[in-house]
Amino acid sequence: MIELDFEKFQGLVPAVVQDYTDGQVLMVGFMNREAWERTLAEGEMVYYSRSRNTLWKKGETSGYVQKVKDIYVDCDDDTLLIKVEQIGGAACHTGYRTCFYRRVVDGRLVEEGTPVFDPDDVYKK
Amino acid sequence: MIELDFEKFQGLVPAVVQDYTDGQVLMVGFMNREAWERTLAEGEMVYYSRSRNTLWKKGETSGYVQKVKDIYVDCDDDTLLIKVEQIGGAACHTGYRTCFYRRVVDGRLVEEGTPVFDPDDVYKK
Repeated sequence: MIELDFEKFQGLVPAVVQDYTDGQVLMVGFMNREAWERTLAEGEMVYYSRSRNTLWKKGETSGYVQKVKDIYVDCDDDTLLIKVEQIGGAACHTGYRTCFYRRVVDGRLVEEGTPVFDPDDVYKK
Repeated sequence: MIELDFEKFQGLVPAVVQDYTDGQVLMVGFMNREAWERTLAEGEMVYYSRSRNTLWKKGETSGYVQKVKDIYVDCDDDTLLIKVEQIGGAACHTGYRTCFYRRVVDGRLVEEGTPVFDPDDVYKK
């Protein structure tokens, strides 16, 4: 069993999620021990929501789950890097492929790319 | 000026650091407002150490600074993705290129690759 250091930050570890096909960073989420164990058991990403204080399985509402392909643990055992297959092609609730769709250009944020889906269609059925 | 949400996590935002040449995720660090402003001003990564409660400029001791190439802000304004040129070829204090040099294989951690430098040479001069 792999022991992560959940003590460093209030029972949570950050998980960087990277598309396994091309290495694009899709999002960063947090896991508590239960989310980590469910992710291992189910092979799909489960996070802990800091704002709602609850577990949430990515894709539970949208169907756009993240299938785990590879898991890396950092040198301090307190951060995860997980390579996934992003079902539906987009990780961000805005419909963009990545949550990091805004780039700093001359001191302001400029959107890159176009949304893959319309959040109104996906989340408000 | 870009306003990040430092309130969500005790004045800090996580920064995912990715090699700008091939997209490998090198490390995750945290920044407070001062580290963020110094990073923007100096064009090299400056972090906030949670264990030492102080700013630290990556490469201050080793000379292996991280030159900022591109900055992305996530959809919630509370996480950064920064593409860098890693001077010296390695980001991890262990000498490995990335802090994520251990992969989960059959429930245990297996090291991948070989260190780029010997930490004893770099940090104990």
